[in-house]
Amino acid sequence: MKLWQKNIDSLKEVELFTVGRDREFDLLLAPFDVLGNIAHARMLATVGLLTNEEAAILAKELQHIYATIQQHPSLPEKAAGVNDPAFVIQDDVEDVHSQVEFLLTQKLGDIGKKIHSARSRNDQVLVDVKLFLRAELEQTVHAVQSLFELLIAKSEEFRECLLPGYTHLQLAMPSSFGLWLGAYAESLVDDAISLKAAYDIVNKNPLGSAAGYGSSFPINRTLTTQLLGFGDLNYNVVYAQMGRGKAERNVAMALANLAETLSRLSMDACLFLNQNFGFISFPPQLTTGSSIMPHKKNPDVFELIRSYCNRIKALPNEIMMMTTNLPSGYHRDLQLLKEHLFPAFTTIRSCMEMAGLMLSNMEVKKDILQDEKYKYLFSVEEVNKLVLEGLPFRDAYKKVGLDIEAGQFTYSTEVHHTHEGSIGNLCNHKITANMHDVLSSFAFDESKAALTTLLNG
Amino acid sequence: MKLWQKNIDSLKEVELFTVGRDREFDLLLAPFDVLGNIAHARMLATVGLLTNEEAAILAKELQHIYATIQQHPSLPEKAAGVNDPAFVIQDDVEDVHSQVEFLLTQKLGDIGKKIHSARSRNDQVLVDVKLFLRAELEQTVHAVQSLFELLIAKSEEFRECLLPGYTHLQLAMPSSFGLWLGAYAESLVDDAISLKAAYDIVNKNPLGSAAGYGSSFPINRTLTTQLLGFGDLNYNVVYAQMGRGKAERNVAMALANLAETLSRLSMDACLFLNQNFGFISFPPQLTTGSSIMPHKKNPDVFELIRSYCNRIKALPNEIMMMTTNLPSGYHRDLQLLKEHLFPAFTTIRSCMEMAGLMLSNMEVKKDILQDEKYKYLFSVEEVNKLVLEGLPFRDAYKKVGLDIEAGQFTYSTEVHHTHEGSIGNLCNHKITANMHDVLSSFAFDESKAALTTLLNG
Amino acid sequence: MKLWQKNIDSLKEVELFTVGRDREFDLLLAPFDVLGNIAHARMLATVGLLTNEEAAILAKELQHIYATIQQHPSLPEKAAGVNDPAFVIQDDVEDVHSQVEFLLTQKLGDIGKKIHSARSRNDQVLVDVKLFLRAELEQTVHAVQSLFELLIAKSEEFRECLLPGYTHLQLAMPSSFGLWLGAYAESLVDDAISLKAAYDIVNKNPLGSAAGYGSSFPINRTLTTQLLGFGDLNYNVVYAQMGRGKAERNVAMALANLAETLSRLSMDACLFLNQNFGFISFPPQLTTGSSIMPHKKNPDVFELIRSYCNRIKALPNEIMMMTTNLPSGYHRDLQLLKEHLFPAFTTIRSCMEMAGLMLSNMEVKKDILQDEKYKYLFSVEEVNKLVLEGLPFRDAYKKVGLDIEAGQFTYSTEVHHTHEGSIGNLCNHKITANMHDVLSSFAFDESKAALTTLLNG
Amino acid sequence: MKLWQKNIDSLKEVELFTVGRDREFDLLLAPFDVLGNIAHARMLATVGLLTNEEAAILAKELQHIYATIQQHPSLPEKAAGVNDPAFVIQDDVEDVHSQVEFLLTQKLGDIGKKIHSARSRNDQVLVDVKLFLRAELEQTVHAVQSLFELLIAKSEEFRECLLPGYTHLQLAMPSSFGLWLGAYAESLVDDAISLKAAYDIVNKNPLGSAAGYGSSFPINRTLTTQLLGFGDLNYNVVYAQMGRGKAERNVAMALANLAETLSRLSMDACLFLNQNFGFISFPPQLTTGSSIMPHKKNPDVFELIRSYCNRIKALPNEIMMMTTNLPSGYHRDLQLLKEHLFPAFTTIRSCMEMAGLMLSNMEVKKDILQDEKYKYLFSVEEVNKLVLEGLPFRDAYKKVGLDIEAGQFTYSTEVHHTHEGSIGNLCNHKITANMHDVLSSFAFDESKAALTTLLNG
Repeated sequence: MKLWQKNIDSLKEVELFTVGRDREFDLLLAPFDVLGNIAHARMLATVGLLTNEEAAILAKELQHIYATIQQHPSLPEKAAGVNDPAFVIQDDVEDVHSQVEFLLTQKLGDIGKKIHSARSRNDQVLVDVKLFLRAELEQTVHAVQSLFELLIAKSEEFRECLLPGYTHLQLAMPSSFGLWLGAYAESLVDDAISLKAAYDIVNKNPLGSAAGYGSSFPINRTLTTQLLGFGDLNYNVVYAQMGRGKAERNVAMALANLAETLSRLSMDACLFLNQNFGFISFPPQLTTGSSIMPHKKNPDVFELIRSYCNRIKALPNEIMMMTTNLPSGYHRDLQLLKEHLFPAFTTIRSCMEMAGLMLSNMEVKKDILQDEKYKYLFSVEEVNKLVLEGLPFRDAYKKVGLDIEAGQFTYSTEVHHTHEGSIGNLCNHKITANMHDVLSSFAFDESKAALTTLLNG
Repeated sequence: MKLWQKNIDSLKEVELFTVGRDREFDLLLAPFDVLGNIAHARMLATVGLLTNEEAAILAKELQHIYATIQQHPSLPEKAAGVNDPAFVIQDDVEDVHSQVEFLLTQKLGDIGKKIHSARSRNDQVLVDVKLFLRAELEQTVHAVQSLFELLIAKSEEFRECLLPGYTHLQLAMPSSFGLWLGAYAESLVDDAISLKAAYDIVNKNPLGSAAGYGSSFPINRTLTTQLLGFGDLNYNVVYAQMGRGKAERNVAMALANLAETLSRLSMDACLFLNQNFGFISFPPQLTTGSSIMPHKKNPDVFELIRSYCNRIKALPNEIMMMTTNLPSGYHRDLQLLKEHLFPAFTTIRSCMEMAGLMLSNMEVKKDILQDEKYKYLFSVEEVNKLVLEGLPFRDAYKKVGLDIEAGQFTYSTEVHHTHEGSIGNLCNHKITANMHDVLSSFAFDESKAALTTLLNG
Repeated sequence: MKLWQKNIDSLKEVELFTVGRDREFDLLLAPFDVLGNIAHARMLATVGLLTNEEAAILAKELQHIYATIQQHPSLPEKAAGVNDPAFVIQDDVEDVHSQVEFLLTQKLGDIGKKIHSARSRNDQVLVDVKLFLRAELEQTVHAVQSLFELLIAKSEEFRECLLPGYTHLQLAMPSSFGLWLGAYAESLVDDAISLKAAYDIVNKNPLGSAAGYGSSFPINRTLTTQLLGFGDLNYNVVYAQMGRGKAERNVAMALANLAETLSRLSMDACLFLNQNFGFISFPPQLTTGSSIMPHKKNPDVFELIRSYCNRIKALPNEIMMMTTNLPSGYHRDLQLLKEHLFPAFTTIRSCMEMAGLMLSNMEVKKDILQDEKYKYLFSVEEVNKLVLEGLPFRDAYKKVGLDIEAGQFTYSTEVHHTHEGSIGNLCNHKITANMHDVLSSFAFDESKAALTTLLNG
Repeated sequence: MKLWQKNIDSLKEVELFTVGRDREFDLLLAPFDVLGNIAHARMLATVGLLTNEEAAILAKELQHIYATIQQHPSLPEKAAGVNDPAFVIQDDVEDVHSQVEFLLTQKLGDIGKKIHSARSRNDQVLVDVKLFLRAELEQTVHAVQSLFELLIAKSEEFRECLLPGYTHLQLAMPSSFGLWLGAYAESLVDDAISLKAAYDIVNKNPLGSAAGYGSSFPINRTLTTQLLGFGDLNYNVVYAQMGRGKAERNVAMALANLAETLSRLSMDACLFLNQNFGFISFPPQLTTGSSIMPHKKNPDVFELIRSYCNRIKALPNEIMMMTTNLPSGYHRDLQLLKEHLFPAFTTIRSCMEMAGLMLSNMEVKKDILQDEKYKYLFSVEEVNKLVLEGLPFRDAYKKVGLDIEAGQFTYSTEVHHTHEGSIGNLCNHKITANMHDVLSSFAFDESKAALTTLLNG
């Protein structure tokens, strides 16, 4: 029987369809919902919508709920079967916001009910999502920093190891592992710039926009901004609501940039591990082998990093497809934005962890360029040497060309590159200084201090 | 006859296919190619690869070529049929880099040939593209500023005009034209943050990376960085090459953010102009009508802004699709990135011009909310009033609900919202201050000063 | 401590990362894996790699495992907390293929081991995925048929109810609910064509391609093709492997086409439910209301259909992003394609169920066009009437224009459209015949008969 | 001065913005617009809206205009500077539809004006676009057929040449050039299925839908369907209008499928040409070299095919982004869909031409697998041999494993694969038969016959 031939009065399918996977993803928002509640309660007391005593009682109970939530197992622990001991969204409760309010009311009665004054569920979701994104961005930036430091260290470790440099996938000129690894380190600097832009867009307080059109209560949004450690407000309440989807898109774009760096590194690694290249190798614990094909060292880890990251690169587009041409004002469509974005943080950090694991165990083939098949890599070097010795460029170029044609090409595999960013002068200290500058521009400490005060105040 | 049944020795199709539309797009790079040439020549003299005299002769001739290029008609002028008087890429010349070198050699003989020392076409393209993107970003940011100022001015002008606020496209609460217009102004502030991140990634010098693996010449990349007014270097030469595609992607993402703001504004405008809403109108010169359907005021301009902008929103994805899983090192694939990105700048600035034109001529319907059909927009207001008068929220809520049911709902259409960002307190000065902060963080003046010195030095 | 500072010998993280969510999605493949096993065993016996007796024993045990799997709760049942009684992928078993083989070996000893001759896990996955996609496409097509029939029935039911027709979102000409609903029915016909193409691409047997390069065993791929009810083979084994990602992409494209139809229908419905339009309404059980805003009838169901469907529209792009520029041959990247595609089938069928539920309970406002605000919709009608009465078009056009200007426009709200596909001649029978033709071109019965034989033979 | 500070009465920018590049793309629609006109005129005569004589006069003049248009140079000719001799869209004429009507009126006076009865520009654009897409699809399918035949021929030519087969980019098992080339041939079969679905969706007549809501004239849409050689009608007029964007999307999806095949082939070719692989080579006329790097054989042609094709793969997404969440009914947004889709046909056919040119000149390295570095490719072969000789699989597997460990692995490089689609049994005749079936399902001849009758009748 079709759904539409049934009696609509007793249909559970509508609720199932509209709630969807919200309970699952709302759990991730739980600690941030509590933080938003405390800030809101404190503020209500300052404008006379709660007494100081009521606000204190609410804050204390909310701190207790926060502690319960913090006992939650992490995602990996949950994957490993650890059960939630304490905080759950009950089956008959629609979302995390209702659950928190239910707990408050259950414990505190009428005082619990008063906390919903001068706000709407819309702006609770908004502030929860922003606090969640901010926290995830912070963790992601820390992971970027770790991977960056590893890449720099490895670039230094292998600075003397030469590698063929390709253009058009054709042998071109000498490169080095120092250059190759340092390039990805520097790529992370620009990715961090993009993360910083997303962070700045996220780190503005939407709380107080109510249903997206503000409220006639004389609330103090500047105060909740300070209490929650936001850098500023989304002032205009219509814009605050418009931030839903926009914050997600900007974050997804930053993750996509980071993902592109990891994905390309993985492609290179898969190629370098291929036996026709054979530039790098990994211990058997980190590759998949075959007992009768001893050459097999399948780089599954890199292939999955590549695939996860390419999927993340499609995420900004997905978010745009889901929000395109929606007029301003809230639409229920926005609810689904959580489902692919929220796990993307865990995914990309796993990818960084795994990339770090692989790189720190990577063995590099020595003396690759001693192989005669790479000799023409050095032809440009030989031309340049002649030029530096005083021969005009065209003559030098002609001489080397003729030598090659005549089978008389001689060359040295020593490479003397001295300029900024070249094989002999990687400038890793400059790149590190740039990364330091970007990282120190994040306001993590200020936010953390505010939240600590909020939880302990 | 199939192409592949022809004699390959005389095939012109291969060259036609590989050159593609490069000559067309290279013209846009011409002035930047000349600037890169001057900086390179100056630098070569400091490291002994040119004499000071040779560098001076080259610089002078390049300044002359620059002047010729500047006589070029603009894109709109060309669309209007204005011909190029002076600088062309000749039919037998492959690209702008070769054309400039050809002009130098034609005029200066051997000196002209010397300029190609210690660089490759790859890093010429890289630096040209970066200088082009930087210049286009600058123009785009200026256009954002103008539109922002207009939106703020219009928000102030219409601050008293109320508008229904919708959630789920259902009537919800009172809004205002002040809020609606101010929201898009504030949206531009966040878009400017995203443009700034793209600008910072673009504003780093790749010149000197040669084919992507550096060179054995003792070049001074720090010097060309200063001469071209870049904020810093792409240090690592492998990363400098990897910046191709990455710079384009980051710029496209920033444009997509801006496009989303314009597209949503256009969607709202088309809806508000629809006769069932009827909130706004435009003079007949700016809409398309019909002599026998007097109600017809087709918002073609907004529809096209929406469509152009939605297309720009697809651009980051297209760039990623074209560069995904390419190993590091140059690939010819990158050549095609120009074709949709370069015109996107002109397009988005036209869209901002047109949006500005429409908004500055927009007439706003007065007293919309006096219409009784909007009365329930005020039900929440009435509840809040009772609460502020001391009635507990639940009792107030119940009373208004019962009044509505009994057909006794009374209400005032006056709206007293006082908190930050609400109808009565738009905080446009705060939003303007934030925009000012973002805009003043761009380093336009430094770059411009450097280029002026370069051209006149 | 960073992962990469730990001892790699005892790391569980690598396995966790590479297995990912495979166990979860492999459960969906379980019945198809068993079917593939039975076909493979039968075939092995015909080429002498198993005895007939061994094949019969294996088939019997596999039929038993199939029955166990069929006891699985459905996805909605699982969502409702029903536990798996019987078939599980054990924690120390990597995937469904190993689990089935493990069960066979546990029960049958050496005979169980023999089934893996002349195949590889790669082609098991390939055939499982194809059988799964085929089954899901079948269910999806059936759901399309149901929704189609409802739309046609509703189009007929409301054929007399006129509706404003908009172009540029501006009032243009009379339309009708018959036209509006019939349009979406006809849209489904073209979507079914696209589903048929995907089905034809899916319904080819890849089994026997082994690791993607075939095998030296004299297997009979034509036989497994018949046994599994496939329409044909993927002949070339390299192409069979290349089908991974390609089958998924083609299916995703067909789902995207279907999703677009549903999404647009939902957008229309949200607009028509908006109070400024007010063309349709739904019983309170199917919308979300508010006790103090009696006008509120939030169309959450349609908003979520729209959002789910727009997300599905982004899926083909995601699949392409994950597979672009991978050289031919298997890559582990492909494993992740399941995660967003497999649930998309359940999602889009839920969306169709919900759309059907909404439409079958939709109430339509009568006599909309009697409202004077819609009078100019009829201006073209009046011109045409004069033309049909013999007045030249230009004169008729001029007369009506002048009447309107002078405030003397008179009109009838009766609409006499008679041509094919117009208000008065919907041609729903023709559209139904076309749908019938497309639906009857699917080879569902042949496949079903083959699988029944396989399970009972 | 900002645009919005100017006098709007004399602004040309609005028209420039709204016309955009329409004149350029409309030229491509010109022949189809004339065909639509002839069919419309013939039909009008049968329903009494024109006399037979008027229809004949119109048809004759339209046939004359058609001839003029056919004198147009092709796109490549235009690229080569050939000028349009005859048919132009004049500067003061908005689009091709107006231009054709202008020419008719100029020549025939009042009779010319009568042709616009019972239609609107909206359905003219619709029918023009469909006829254009149909014609381009036909040409594209012919090009697919040519490339298919070449791939099959090359697969046969190189059937004996072995190649390493890779999984995870790791050496796995023997493959062959016969397999590799045949795989791409078979891929084209499935791509042709997808082109057929797009063709069937395109090949339905929208003419007569007027502005998207039909008309009160008693037109005969079945007749125009026959005259224009369409397979059927888009019956429902609202759906006919909804076909705009949908036809484009379905076509773009089919092109994306084809593009993916070409892109992957190009990636393989670039890899195989890389010196570390060195499996294939091309004459110097078809690669880009370097006089001092004799190893350099840059595969620019394949890189550009890859890039063009990857861009086409992003096109369906772009079309969806531009049409998502537009309510039903015409919107001006749709106008821009032409700009990236129309040139995509020429691009993909160039790519097929170029791929054919490269493949037909490809030289294949002989005896690749004789190189000892590929020896373990044969380990699975050796295991299978032992199994076929009677040894149980596990014992055979163990023996070969131990031999390898002990350095005693011996193997033959002869490969005996006999099953369907394997190295020794490519089944190219089966694949060819399948392609024939798909190709013969297109109704090209019927359409062509109808158009010929129309033009000569």
